[in-house]
Amino acid sequence: MTKTASFLDLNLIRLDRRKSTPLTQQLYESLLLAIQSGQLSAGFRLPSTRELALQLSVSRTTVINAFEQLVAEGYLASVVGQGTHVSLRLPEESLMARIQRGDQATTRDRAKESKPSELQGKTAVTSLSAFGQSLDEIDINNLSFSQDLKPFRAGVPALDEFPIDVWSRIVRNCWRTVNRQDLSYGDAVGWKPLRHAIASYLRGFRGVRCTDEQVMIVNGTQQAFDIINRLVLAEGDQVLFESPGYSRAKLAFQVAGAPLVYVPVDKHGLDISKAGAASSAAKLVYVTPSHQEPMGVTMPIERRMQLIEWANQNRAWIVEDDYDSEFRYAHRPIPALQGLDTGNRTIYVGSFSKVVFPSLGMGYVVVPQTLLDGFQKALALVGRPPAKIDQIVLTEFMEEGHFARHLRRMRTVHESRRSALVDMLNEHLSHALQIVGADAGLHCTAILNDRWNDKSIAVQAAERGIVLRPLSAFLESDQPSEFRNGLIFGFACSTPSQIRGAIRKLLPIF
Amino acid sequence: MTKTASFLDLNLIRLDRRKSTPLTQQLYESLLLAIQSGQLSAGFRLPSTRELALQLSVSRTTVINAFEQLVAEGYLASVVGQGTHVSLRLPEESLMARIQRGDQATTRDRAKESKPSELQGKTAVTSLSAFGQSLDEIDINNLSFSQDLKPFRAGVPALDEFPIDVWSRIVRNCWRTVNRQDLSYGDAVGWKPLRHAIASYLRGFRGVRCTDEQVMIVNGTQQAFDIINRLVLAEGDQVLFESPGYSRAKLAFQVAGAPLVYVPVDKHGLDISKAGAASSAAKLVYVTPSHQEPMGVTMPIERRMQLIEWANQNRAWIVEDDYDSEFRYAHRPIPALQGLDTGNRTIYVGSFSKVVFPSLGMGYVVVPQTLLDGFQKALALVGRPPAKIDQIVLTEFMEEGHFARHLRRMRTVHESRRSALVDMLNEHLSHALQIVGADAGLHCTAILNDRWNDKSIAVQAAERGIVLRPLSAFLESDQPSEFRNGLIFGFACSTPSQIRGAIRKLLPIF
Repeated sequence: MTKTASFLDLNLIRLDRRKSTPLTQQLYESLLLAIQSGQLSAGFRLPSTRELALQLSVSRTTVINAFEQLVAEGYLASVVGQGTHVSLRLPEESLMARIQRGDQATTRDRAKESKPSELQGKTAVTSLSAFGQSLDEIDINNLSFSQDLKPFRAGVPALDEFPIDVWSRIVRNCWRTVNRQDLSYGDAVGWKPLRHAIASYLRGFRGVRCTDEQVMIVNGTQQAFDIINRLVLAEGDQVLFESPGYSRAKLAFQVAGAPLVYVPVDKHGLDISKAGAASSAAKLVYVTPSHQEPMGVTMPIERRMQLIEWANQNRAWIVEDDYDSEFRYAHRPIPALQGLDTGNRTIYVGSFSKVVFPSLGMGYVVVPQTLLDGFQKALALVGRPPAKIDQIVLTEFMEEGHFARHLRRMRTVHESRRSALVDMLNEHLSHALQIVGADAGLHCTAILNDRWNDKSIAVQAAERGIVLRPLSAFLESDQPSEFRNGLIFGFACSTPSQIRGAIRKLLPIF
Repeated sequence: MTKTASFLDLNLIRLDRRKSTPLTQQLYESLLLAIQSGQLSAGFRLPSTRELALQLSVSRTTVINAFEQLVAEGYLASVVGQGTHVSLRLPEESLMARIQRGDQATTRDRAKESKPSELQGKTAVTSLSAFGQSLDEIDINNLSFSQDLKPFRAGVPALDEFPIDVWSRIVRNCWRTVNRQDLSYGDAVGWKPLRHAIASYLRGFRGVRCTDEQVMIVNGTQQAFDIINRLVLAEGDQVLFESPGYSRAKLAFQVAGAPLVYVPVDKHGLDISKAGAASSAAKLVYVTPSHQEPMGVTMPIERRMQLIEWANQNRAWIVEDDYDSEFRYAHRPIPALQGLDTGNRTIYVGSFSKVVFPSLGMGYVVVPQTLLDGFQKALALVGRPPAKIDQIVLTEFMEEGHFARHLRRMRTVHESRRSALVDMLNEHLSHALQIVGADAGLHCTAILNDRWNDKSIAVQAAERGIVLRPLSAFLESDQPSEFRNGLIFGFACSTPSQIRGAIRKLLPIF
């Protein structure tokens, strides 16, 4: 029950050297009051007398005397070798109720007292910006990435197969050879050797056309969307968005105030010819051409060329989110759209969440030459790059060939999980659903027959410990789409036998 | 000369299965063209035949045959155990010039060809947002944190004394015991135990009043400023800013479009009564009360109370940047202003850059209750928290008592460096300058007598390998201030003998 935290709130202690009361007495009274009021709770371990004396700039004797008095009175207890803590049973038993209320209640009570209560609720809203107010309208549940790895959680790779041993060996080596400058401030757009390694990788594996300097490191793709948003969109500039489309990217554009125009996705992805009137007004289009989120379909070359032509004609930007294209099962990898765009209107966004691990929190943007300066400045102003040592470790991981090896291995691992899922769905649920876009990535989407409702299936699945996101959650009611009723099956974070087990658990629902 | 990168740009290889030409022949031609054009440069190491066959979905024999043909013709060379690379001396010597131009030139040429050249320059500007345009006006030199640790570099702690051994031992332990869920997505506002550890620390050491949930982890303080900015300021809302003041924070507010009103700093910091007409209109004030950046002065309690009263009366926000207050030399630490503000109008911003190390890239915000929801959503939308494992390591560092120990040790280390500086300045340069605010932090500022000009001294110091930021760089010409001509001496990142040596090198300038 003795707490390990030994930070004592120095505000609790009022020492006034101008007073005639001895400092020992003042210290004793302060501590007594703090214990009686519950601000120092039972079991709280105090700093050593030496430490507290230093903190308060008083002699050690002053502290020892105060402590001894409180021990004598039963407020403090000393255990040899463990220092001094607030007694578990205090002299006045009646205090216990107040002690249990803890800090939080106190802060809230104080807030209430200091403000006219009728104003309090409204102030929070009216003192917010437009950005703040649009955040206010967002459902927080759409934003929290759950950490648990239940079957069919989408967007999480096979973490059980991540080579922690290799990674942590590199971490150890990096810390052994780190120099003091690596602890200091670094380049706002990322560590040069990492940018070089990513550029090589993108040119080689993804067909991206870029120099090293065009690659900038970000704290995940959301930061990239946010900066793109603010950098290239003037107020009121329309954004074309896939329907259905990736919720978090959608929100990033929405809260910044960009009017979204939804363009329906079919089996070949977004079709720019369906953008209607917005096609001449819009300044940006967000697409996931390699593996559409959530439908999983791939945009064929004709559509890509049309999109690029549109962007160049309208001087609009294409944001290509290539979030999980590395894993492709049916055909050879399809090069990035960015590589086809000779007009440099494509901003390519990628992430290490799916190909290394999500909690690394590292992504990158391939920035067109004309935006280099703006992007660099924005990154320097709105944040800090990921920890330098993590960038060094990732660079080693890439340069020593572990990354390419890991990708190859994961492709096989994910493929076997995908097969397990597809086989089970075909065998047991072909009467109820139809798979779309299972050729790549970490998830596939299945369209439900009208007899079933995706939201209700999702609820029943959740009761069985299974995560199935309903497709309808990706669409607002006014969004056009031929895909409205379906389920997202993430297959990467569960083993084939877990997948088979989970599908069997789902069968009674259908 | 053999390059280690083995990523082959798959775009270079054109295989068309509908053609009658054998795939081996097509592959041979593609590689030949890439080598001749310089896209595959001399020494470039090709993937293994097995790997390339997999990537291209062709048989391994197809690849082997193509490689063998190119080796026979002298374009490729095979070294046993090292694979195949592009020959260092190619059959046509005349190609070498083109090869040296490399990738970058190619990309730029392509960009030029595809756009009418008279438009190119302007497009970049006109397609930017207001944010983008204000970034355009910023001098990038104000934004780059230099990595070198020359004498008097400000804002960098004694990195030579950072306990790398302790830290890396914790890193090793964390990787040994990491679980798979720690690799997955985490909470957007930071890892709970870290938030708890920081809250305890802030309550104990800094007199901050907060619950654990009010502490949110950010990627450095700039991210905090950026979010605060966007969350609480409506368009046109005025911001009161210290004059002189911290350049990067200033830019963060400026580029987001907030009109800044400069309030002069005197020996007691910012004086809210000098805010003039803006004092009733402004919605936010940015202050560094513990150790003013750059003057180094401390705001006394009366000024703090006035500021808090102003904020509560005007329903304005105080942003308290407590960037290096942990190191205090002359008196006992002064609790944070936030702790005095019972009206919850203070947003407290802190960082681990000065107390752990800068390249960790971790900061935190203590968010008032009314802004909790907005802050949480903003963080989830505009980025990702620092790498989970780094958060775990930092938590261990704090909870095992290393952090408190490190702070105590660093206080002594920094104090000895500060003394070395102050003694040297008093002894040798008292005729030229007068120290202000050397009681805390990692730097002090010295006011120059009129005979000397700070910018010219800074230039001459730089020629001697010494970094002295001129005070005038912190002020635009229209900013009010009694401090206009001075020098910033960062004393923390150099040893006492380095400091003495550097001052001796400076003496001939005066």
